Amino acid sequence: MEKEIHDLWREVRELSLGTEIDRLDTPPSPIQFIRDYVSQSKPCVISKAISHWPALKLWSDPSYLAASLSDDLVSLHLTPNGSADAVTPMNHHDGNTENLCFASAHVEKLLFTEALHAVKSSCKGRNVAYLQQQNDCFRTEYSNVCLDCDGDIAWATEALGCSPEAVNLWIGTDLSVTSFHKDHYENLYAVVSGEKHFLLLPPTDVHRLYVQEYPVANYSYNRDSEEFKLELEQPMKYVPWCSVDPYPSPEKEASERSKFPLFFDGPKPFHCTVKAGEILYLPSMWFHHVSQTQGDGGYTIAVNYWYDMQFDVKYAYFNFLQSVPYESSSLISKLSGREDEDSESSDAEV
Amino acid sequence: MEKEIHDLWREVRELSLGTEIDRLDTPPSPIQFIRDYVSQSKPCVISKAISHWPALKLWSDPSYLAASLSDDLVSLHLTPNGSADAVTPMNHHDGNTENLCFASAHVEKLLFTEALHAVKSSCKGRNVAYLQQQNDCFRTEYSNVCLDCDGDIAWATEALGCSPEAVNLWIGTDLSVTSFHKDHYENLYAVVSGEKHFLLLPPTDVHRLYVQEYPVANYSYNRDSEEFKLELEQPMKYVPWCSVDPYPSPEKEASERSKFPLFFDGPKPFHCTVKAGEILYLPSMWFHHVSQTQGDGGYTIAVNYWYDMQFDVKYAYFNFLQSVPYESSSLISKLSGREDEDSESSDAEV
Repeated sequence: MEKEIHDLWREVRELSLGTEIDRLDTPPSPIQFIRDYVSQSKPCVISKAISHWPALKLWSDPSYLAASLSDDLVSLHLTPNGSADAVTPMNHHDGNTENLCFASAHVEKLLFTEALHAVKSSCKGRNVAYLQQQNDCFRTEYSNVCLDCDGDIAWATEALGCSPEAVNLWIGTDLSVTSFHKDHYENLYAVVSGEKHFLLLPPTDVHRLYVQEYPVANYSYNRDSEEFKLELEQPMKYVPWCSVDPYPSPEKEASERSKFPLFFDGPKPFHCTVKAGEILYLPSMWFHHVSQTQGDGGYTIAVNYWYDMQFDVKYAYFNFLQSVPYESSSLISKLSGREDEDSESSDAEV
Repeated sequence: MEKEIHDLWREVRELSLGTEIDRLDTPPSPIQFIRDYVSQSKPCVISKAISHWPALKLWSDPSYLAASLSDDLVSLHLTPNGSADAVTPMNHHDGNTENLCFASAHVEKLLFTEALHAVKSSCKGRNVAYLQQQNDCFRTEYSNVCLDCDGDIAWATEALGCSPEAVNLWIGTDLSVTSFHKDHYENLYAVVSGEKHFLLLPPTDVHRLYVQEYPVANYSYNRDSEEFKLELEQPMKYVPWCSVDPYPSPEKEASERSKFPLFFDGPKPFHCTVKAGEILYLPSMWFHHVSQTQGDGGYTIAVNYWYDMQFDVKYAYFNFLQSVPYESSSLISKLSGREDEDSESSDAEV
């Protein structure tokens, strides 16, 4: 099936996606949005989408946020390297084998001002802090500033026929990176300060991400010793996750390229930078890798709206495609796992 | 891949299609139509969709049409059995083999009144006439009555963002049957008189139709001898067409069932009857088989609107699925004389 799968990668680009992510100067009408983007599972970036949000001006000054949220407890994600929910070596010293796991951040509830200070003073290799929690945190932990943004993206709500299921806030620096994964939501991703850099691959390219089952491990952070421990969850639990790091370090590049040729030798991922004031429509089931550049205030700030997706024929086709064995899948079967449903007990979604 | 393909058939029904075609009491809003039906590639029948068309009353009296169109030349399709554009035996007398072809009707341009009379006096086994031409005939040949219907289906035009590419008129009797096939158009099919009976299978079920290449043959009719000749087009030309007749004659049923087990033993096709005053939304790429019952005036009359489809990710997925070999393809290779090492599948049917 190799030829047929490569043909699919090519055809979806030729027919629908093109070579660059569409850019719209103003928000689409609800019908245009659903017809030309959602229905086609095609991303777009919309400029001047949130010009009317007070947040766009207010939040570029961190002292405004600090004053508004001073007494509020917020969720802070801590990792040694800025990679949470990512495939990570376990650092076992058992010879040449490198045991990989799916590492979750250490999560703490802190006063916002302390948490923001931790983000600012992040230091790679020691302690990188990222203010985020994908559980509707914007409307719960950040309720004191949530009126600075719209409660939904009006044209998306009308198009999709429902209100957002969750709204999440993200405050970080360029030290935090989100590894390739997909979500089972339609995602409207608004950048309020700084820039977000997305690498995107359509669901048709699933084999190129080498999705495998990894054992779940959790970081725990000791404030006194300032050290992280990474320990496998007990009893062992596995989640399917993308194996590919699109930006390997120079010393790892050759080995990564030889391990993941479908990714590195196939069609280039779509790249797009979403600036403050812009919204990315990221269709459900698209694989995305996210990095960021902070804005004038010293942070990257984004708010994303998750809308329920439709589990329809596209989803059924995706499951069928994923079931077709091709290189990465044979790797999966070695690991004994078949990717079925996302595990309920984890918020991780490949 | 047998299991995976059967899973796809099942999943698209469980997730999206259900077991019956949706029925709407009134036309959907454009957004509802595109979100819940077009985007999901999901058919629906809409009642009270054309109540305001003068045609609904006027055309039930054939003398109205005869008077309005008396001087107009229209395209009449003639076959001996009511099956045009269908897989048909060539009736060669060369032993036991039955050579099959794709047989096109004899098409004549006649005055409407003569043509209508030919439809009325159709006789199976001798001469079955069907007034139809899928080339926008309603707006050309029938321009003298086309104001009796709307020029488009307004909510579909708004949803799909374009006007109909073609509008076709169909006047026939229960002797005319359209064999399983698919069209590369979004189809809004309005019944004005009588009833149309659709058997429907989604594009995901493509392997169940045993699509094969058949040589094109054309009927020609001699008015004097009242005889048809069926001759292969020269030079030979081949078209891919569905092999399955869902209603085989009793003497053929056992052999058809054994030739096409994926069709006869798989999930039941969707069945729906569209009555005068109703519209069927038939999504692009859905396989459909159409039969009919005439109304009070003695004819079944329908007008269908073809809108351009989007060749997007669903289309790419379909092409990929179709490229996956499964039984029907092995049949194709047998017919083309190649040895096929894969024996008949004994996989359990869904």
